[in-house]
Amino acid sequence: MRILGLDPGTRICGYGVIDCRGEVLSYVECGVITAPEDHAMEARLGEIAQGLREVIQELAPQVAAVEDVFSQMNPRTALALAQGRGMALAVLGLCGLSVASYPPASVKKTITGSGRAEKDQVARLVQMSIGLRSLPRVDATDALAVAITHARMSRPTAARLEDAVVAPRSRRAAP
Amino acid sequence: MRILGLDPGTRICGYGVIDCRGEVLSYVECGVITAPEDHAMEARLGEIAQGLREVIQELAPQVAAVEDVFSQMNPRTALALAQGRGMALAVLGLCGLSVASYPPASVKKTITGSGRAEKDQVARLVQMSIGLRSLPRVDATDALAVAITHARMSRPTAARLEDAVVAPRSRRAAP
Repeated sequence: MRILGLDPGTRICGYGVIDCRGEVLSYVECGVITAPEDHAMEARLGEIAQGLREVIQELAPQVAAVEDVFSQMNPRTALALAQGRGMALAVLGLCGLSVASYPPASVKKTITGSGRAEKDQVARLVQMSIGLRSLPRVDATDALAVAITHARMSRPTAARLEDAVVAPRSRRAAP
Repeated sequence: MRILGLDPGTRICGYGVIDCRGEVLSYVECGVITAPEDHAMEARLGEIAQGLREVIQELAPQVAAVEDVFSQMNPRTALALAQGRGMALAVLGLCGLSVASYPPASVKKTITGSGRAEKDQVARLVQMSIGLRSLPRVDATDALAVAITHARMSRPTAARLEDAVVAPRSRRAAP
């Protein structure tokens, strides 16, 4: 399964594409689509939408994943993020992709084991999970994090149960 | 000048197109683009984006106008509206249209003279301004209201000054 993770904004949209075969994740591509700060909002969103469409046409993901926007954020930030998210969802919908949505804390927890992990800890574990030599730009790393989250969340239930059971079993085996 | 007014949402997007020649406004078309409630958000936004693109291709507006989204609203409502707005702005940007944005109170004030006018008062005055026989659906009427607002706001300064000066002059002429 090829997964497109997105971190959409109104000036920068991070994207990260991975392939997922059973437990094995492999890196395909990541990057950022940017729009000049001095362009009007509609021009920026249009340019990012166009870039995103090209990424999808070229890399042909089968499913997409994005983070939720939270109403607890600063209202102006949340509204700007929601506009970027609306643009991205429309492009994904037009391309016929379905979208899985994860709260930011679930992404952190899936990657690091803690919903309160720091950004650089998440980034290092993203880098390790898919064997990247260097750390990409922050928006691209965030996009890869949500793609990896979706890969782990959509594993067959048996595999996820095994993970959950490993720790108690090993404790029981200890004296 | 042909103006496209929009009232974008994530299930229904109202649109209203008017032509504006000097002081004369004439109605072109209005309607709603809808997406089935049981479709996923990305599918709905994609369907509405596609419909909006068709409206723009067919009616060829030269400029667009939308209402601002306000952070004082209920946060969930504001976030949903912002996602719809982001989708619409991206489509307008992709079509090369520039967008004027007006606070809801400015639209009410421009149409009725009061920023606190009721919805049905705004609707009746929209109907009168462009000589509609019957009242369209609420989302289409709201879209026409923002298109009319843009037409009035973009009149040459001289015309707007004349409006402002008419009342004092007639008072001075009275005994």
